[in-house]
Amino acid sequence: MDEACITLGHGAGGRPMQALIQELLLPLFDNPALAALEDQARLPLPTQPGCRLAMSTDGYVVSPLCFPGGDIGCLAVNGTVNDLAVGGAVPRYLSCAFIIEEGLPMALLRQICQSLAQAAREAGVSIVTGDTKVVPRGQADKLFITTSGVGEIPAGVDLGMHRIAAGDALLVSGPLGDHGATILAARQELGLSCQVQSDTQPLHGLMQALLARVPGLHCARDLTRGGLNAVAHEFAAASGLSLWLEEDALPIRPAVASLCELLGLDPLQLACEGRLLACVAPAQAEQALAVMAHWPGGEGAARVGAVGEAEASPVLLHSALGVVRALAMGEGEALPRIC
Amino acid sequence: MDEACITLGHGAGGRPMQALIQELLLPLFDNPALAALEDQARLPLPTQPGCRLAMSTDGYVVSPLCFPGGDIGCLAVNGTVNDLAVGGAVPRYLSCAFIIEEGLPMALLRQICQSLAQAAREAGVSIVTGDTKVVPRGQADKLFITTSGVGEIPAGVDLGMHRIAAGDALLVSGPLGDHGATILAARQELGLSCQVQSDTQPLHGLMQALLARVPGLHCARDLTRGGLNAVAHEFAAASGLSLWLEEDALPIRPAVASLCELLGLDPLQLACEGRLLACVAPAQAEQALAVMAHWPGGEGAARVGAVGEAEASPVLLHSALGVVRALAMGEGEALPRIC
Repeated sequence: MDEACITLGHGAGGRPMQALIQELLLPLFDNPALAALEDQARLPLPTQPGCRLAMSTDGYVVSPLCFPGGDIGCLAVNGTVNDLAVGGAVPRYLSCAFIIEEGLPMALLRQICQSLAQAAREAGVSIVTGDTKVVPRGQADKLFITTSGVGEIPAGVDLGMHRIAAGDALLVSGPLGDHGATILAARQELGLSCQVQSDTQPLHGLMQALLARVPGLHCARDLTRGGLNAVAHEFAAASGLSLWLEEDALPIRPAVASLCELLGLDPLQLACEGRLLACVAPAQAEQALAVMAHWPGGEGAARVGAVGEAEASPVLLHSALGVVRALAMGEGEALPRIC
Repeated sequence: MDEACITLGHGAGGRPMQALIQELLLPLFDNPALAALEDQARLPLPTQPGCRLAMSTDGYVVSPLCFPGGDIGCLAVNGTVNDLAVGGAVPRYLSCAFIIEEGLPMALLRQICQSLAQAAREAGVSIVTGDTKVVPRGQADKLFITTSGVGEIPAGVDLGMHRIAAGDALLVSGPLGDHGATILAARQELGLSCQVQSDTQPLHGLMQALLARVPGLHCARDLTRGGLNAVAHEFAAASGLSLWLEEDALPIRPAVASLCELLGLDPLQLACEGRLLACVAPAQAEQALAVMAHWPGGEGAARVGAVGEAEASPVLLHSALGVVRALAMGEGEALPRIC
């Protein structure tokens, strides 16, 4: 396979596509289910009795494809791994579907596939099935990836929004908005530089540590599009309660805060790709924070507020000056293709 | 939700996206796992001990979005259902990820979601998790959908290319190339009309009937991009044997044959979306054919050849005149965005 670029033939089901699979994808993703080349992966799940299956999917349309701290490949693994992990599942297997614009340089695709493979190894998952579609030039912008994942929720694990209770402490696992700020800065047309990198990382290790040591963990969700604000609203809507955030407790890097001020953006609505918001029984909040802070990737974890009884507004921000402000849901038009 | 078109806000994680999920997607896809609104679907799988999990994914980039016999919605369900079914799995759950171009009419999205929901009902699957991304105008062509599916392979079912044996009969479940011909005719710029419609349909019912009544079923695969030729080559490559096709046994509608002749295309390389190629122990070929022919959607099923010992060429066509011709793998540049 010596082509320099992806052609329509690579997506057409014939020889060029088989060559792409054999020479690029199989060696990198390297597992028996994929190597069997059947139309479907056959997987020995669950591995223990009493497990439930967890399933999730996400499309990745980030632009630019590569940015400080990562690329679309590791985003596509970590994002789907995290959607499984925050439900208490052990992530096991991913599928990976490419939609490629004709003309994409092969070297770039190879780089992204190496990134996918590396991220999968770090997250302890295998990419067991996939698909490659190629569209004519101009009909898609370079590369989109959709991953789906399955994992196992062990018997007895029951995390979810149904467990959110008034009095729960709200914890975030690290600084807010790093990923969104990185993408904005990377979009050359803005002419900005920002000393941050994407926070993309797998959260399954952190979730397993929390499950093992914090029985009062009720619910966790990873912060992506719409940032902390979006997840806070989802928690409030599902529980019928209100979420209180303490403005001076929110961990935000100065570089991110400056960028937001410059662009008139709210860091609470800026995307992350490796942070979670957790609801924890108040008596165990300190223990949960300690687990987060000691976990590699959990620097900057903070207790940011609490769940309260229902108020007129679902999400409220208590400022350093004592003013209380209702936070509206985002309308979100400002930042396309963040993830 | 009263917008006429999809906006960037619908993909941004805030209020407009929540409205889209609540008002369009939840009511149509209607199942408890999806309605729980967690980041991951929690699923009671497997339903019986000893099952293996099957997993598959496919991206759908068909153009036009709607065509005689179907649309991208039912394609996206049937295609993934079929990839599971041909491995002997009972398809259970699908994920559905949209990549939408800003400006797509809401009415069109609604129509396609209704089609997805209807196809899911007919195939006996639930769409349990999903994602919606919106990209700015011009960065994707209207709508791409990626579905992934999981199903259960019952204990004792062991279909696959590893079971292909010399002497196996080759059977197809219906006429070849209907889908590809339909798409080509539908592309207005060709100015053609063709009295066929897409063959998109779920094959799980047929597969279950074959599994129940044809113990000598060794392997099945659905014919998609690259047509019968592509799957024949995949079978040959995996088994190390050669596949013989009988030209006058191949079921091809006259309208499809004419279109192919007009455009200089090979009907054996034209896509289907609801046909399978099966390898069956020769003693049970007639029984398998009877099962196919009696199944609604199996009209035109035919025995098209046999698996033989390895020859110089992996796939050979025996013409009506007695000439033997080697069939090369397709290079496949002619027909983008067929599925």
